[in-house]
Amino acid sequence: MTDQASLPLHPTARAQHVLSLLAAEIGDKISTNLSVCEAHSHGEALEIANMPVGVVFAESTQDVSATLALCHHHRVPVVAFGAGTSVEGHVTPPDGAISLDLSRMTEVMAVNSSDLDCRVQAGVTRQALNAFLRDTGLFFPVDPGGEATLGGMCATRASGTAAVRYGTIKENVLGLTVVMANGEVIQTGGRVRKSSTGYDLTSLFIGSEGTLGIITEIQLRLHGQPEQLSAAVCQFENLEDAVNTAVEIIQMGIPIARVELLDDVQMQACIRYSNLDNYQPLTTLFFEFAGSPEAVKEQITVTEALARDNNGLAFTWADTADERATLWKARHNAYWAVKALHPGQRLISTDCIVPISQLTTLITGVKDDILASGLYAAILGHVGDGNFHTLIVTEETEAGRQQALALDRKIVARALALGGSSSGEHGVGLGKLEFLAAEHGEGALSVMRALKATLDPRNILNPGKLLPVGPVFKG
Amino acid sequence: MTDQASLPLHPTARAQHVLSLLAAEIGDKISTNLSVCEAHSHGEALEIANMPVGVVFAESTQDVSATLALCHHHRVPVVAFGAGTSVEGHVTPPDGAISLDLSRMTEVMAVNSSDLDCRVQAGVTRQALNAFLRDTGLFFPVDPGGEATLGGMCATRASGTAAVRYGTIKENVLGLTVVMANGEVIQTGGRVRKSSTGYDLTSLFIGSEGTLGIITEIQLRLHGQPEQLSAAVCQFENLEDAVNTAVEIIQMGIPIARVELLDDVQMQACIRYSNLDNYQPLTTLFFEFAGSPEAVKEQITVTEALARDNNGLAFTWADTADERATLWKARHNAYWAVKALHPGQRLISTDCIVPISQLTTLITGVKDDILASGLYAAILGHVGDGNFHTLIVTEETEAGRQQALALDRKIVARALALGGSSSGEHGVGLGKLEFLAAEHGEGALSVMRALKATLDPRNILNPGKLLPVGPVFKG
Repeated sequence: MTDQASLPLHPTARAQHVLSLLAAEIGDKISTNLSVCEAHSHGEALEIANMPVGVVFAESTQDVSATLALCHHHRVPVVAFGAGTSVEGHVTPPDGAISLDLSRMTEVMAVNSSDLDCRVQAGVTRQALNAFLRDTGLFFPVDPGGEATLGGMCATRASGTAAVRYGTIKENVLGLTVVMANGEVIQTGGRVRKSSTGYDLTSLFIGSEGTLGIITEIQLRLHGQPEQLSAAVCQFENLEDAVNTAVEIIQMGIPIARVELLDDVQMQACIRYSNLDNYQPLTTLFFEFAGSPEAVKEQITVTEALARDNNGLAFTWADTADERATLWKARHNAYWAVKALHPGQRLISTDCIVPISQLTTLITGVKDDILASGLYAAILGHVGDGNFHTLIVTEETEAGRQQALALDRKIVARALALGGSSSGEHGVGLGKLEFLAAEHGEGALSVMRALKATLDPRNILNPGKLLPVGPVFKG
Repeated sequence: MTDQASLPLHPTARAQHVLSLLAAEIGDKISTNLSVCEAHSHGEALEIANMPVGVVFAESTQDVSATLALCHHHRVPVVAFGAGTSVEGHVTPPDGAISLDLSRMTEVMAVNSSDLDCRVQAGVTRQALNAFLRDTGLFFPVDPGGEATLGGMCATRASGTAAVRYGTIKENVLGLTVVMANGEVIQTGGRVRKSSTGYDLTSLFIGSEGTLGIITEIQLRLHGQPEQLSAAVCQFENLEDAVNTAVEIIQMGIPIARVELLDDVQMQACIRYSNLDNYQPLTTLFFEFAGSPEAVKEQITVTEALARDNNGLAFTWADTADERATLWKARHNAYWAVKALHPGQRLISTDCIVPISQLTTLITGVKDDILASGLYAAILGHVGDGNFHTLIVTEETEAGRQQALALDRKIVARALALGGSSSGEHGVGLGKLEFLAAEHGEGALSVMRALKATLDPRNILNPGKLLPVGPVFKG
């Protein structure tokens, strides 16, 4: 290969050189088309954008390996791209980078019904997987809402509405195929439910946001489709009563499938957007119960009693598949409901999490912050995990963006002061970098930087994401 | 501090030098007494023994940090020691090493009932923690059988009989305090149920067998004590029918609390040792059901039907706390039951795991291997996870040991060929080193070695354990 000293010095020229070398191998999978590059210049946080030099559409682990080997040799940054649903700037390329799109890797490679597991390529979306599984009696439960790829969900340690029952992606991955920075391919984990041999590389790559290696295949746990599903809605005059109901459900150990909170502001938007005419603009809990008919009945009885004791209004039931779909679609459209009320304005979705005992204190404080900010902001979240989002609306200007970020900083500061984390599920990317030191301490961060430097010494894998610059553990 | 060049060259002399320096700070916590050293020369695998130069009884994270800082500077190996229940040689010191005993770190530092979590020092045993929790309505479920410390359980990624319902230690740890090789103290994880910020250092240290850092404090998840517990026993004429029953329970998604298999040989030993006079020497499943009365009733109905369809004999019930205790004590005494039948002989407990669909094939094959070996060997295990142990009896000679190891190798080879792991819960230590390359592949091992070299560049933390020598990933 070319000697490094003879490489063109400009980052963009280096990336172009790599693309020209790759063209010989996989020319039909490379694009430098402007609109393709534009589509790979950002995730859902549109304001954090930067153009890649080109896009490689990998169709196999071998394609990823070939791309990384060349990028490594020529020191060209690589950013993996799945469905582009990140909201924290994860997929935004740095200058002179190649965007490595895995969305064509859509094969469901194996389904083992008896072991409740399957193997997929990284570009399979959770919806596509569940469509594939429909007739097997099995399903994959992790549901972050958007049409995300499973590779992206692994990379950002995603979770969502069903994590309270089934865990996050982390608890549902058994093993990975990972391409390392230099193009080497390794296997982590395996197919067994547990093992105590070797370092847990699988967990190390999950949540590493493409900075330690690129995930190309995933061995996933599956779950049996529950015999019965029931959904219900309960409204509350007071926010605190709603939060307390959710907290008590968890403390009682009720295996609830989902429990989502929408505050009065969010509910008002949803009523209008999704025609939920039977509801009032009050703080609301959406419930889903899953299991055998007997188990569901028992969960419901206890949940209704807890809600009643916390001044909840009467439960509204959605028992048919259609009614449930309407209800959960309304929940999943919460973002669009707020957006529709504010055409032409910016909408930022924040994300934080606290130990559940601190949730009432936190949300009450956040409501005060919102009031003081003078901004429109709706709260909704995975209240059973202590995790919630604030959808903040501002003007589409830099001043508006700074206003939203100022409010977000206050929210995160409150969460961290209560023993929380700056992100329950959106990840760090570029958006949460400033909070990492306060959250993890310099000691842990220096160890993380040492791991990054060891596995990606040339810093080509999604450089600048996840880890703020700082000292590296020397040992 | 002393310049390295001036250090005494002999490993033992270096360790003695460190102990003399430590004596100024924590003299009363150091012992070089022969019987103390002897007790720290091995775990439960008595034949893998080597004397430490001395033992430091740490009483705080600060003590551990002070010890590691000196050992690091003077390049003295350190082996953490908890309850000494390891069966794979984890705690056996290399030459010139200090054994760092954490068993005096027994404080339960905080219990947060509303968040279902607690913080403990590493020397707290799971039994001590559960005694402490007795009146809170909460309990810690991970149960490896022995009186292990929670620090040791984290270090070996322990699990046991309750993992099928509650997960292994890995799923039940939220965060750690870890002392790094150079004495630096870091915090990993936190108190939240999930987070997507930063690399998952907690999972990296869990199962690292004291080779990456020494765990001194643990934030643990707790669970509500189930309203009702029921235990039952079902016997089978055929091994295959028993295994199939367990497999189908898991595949049906029944949230069984425990399901343990004892083969005919093991059951015969238990009947004799624990006076289980109502039972026959047949393959046997021990069940535990936990939950609300309704849920337990439902689980039992389905389980009984599955057992009946697989030619199971009638269920025997243990409903009172006393009856349950007798039954589970008999299960936990399985090792001693075999031991008692073979006084003066060696007993080796092996450990492997496969995807549950492969369990019948594996155990049937292992029975053939046992028969061919001419040895007495009993099978028992956590059949709901696909994990089981073979208790092999041989003469107390080197030839006898080699005979047992030869049989173990056959068992592990079968497990690996079926997509399994060489250890479900005992860990690698020294005993399983030879299987790591076949199980993980050289790629993953080279990455593990790179992590080890980064976090412990002087190779003082439990050197020689967990990772076989080989190439290091260079990136």
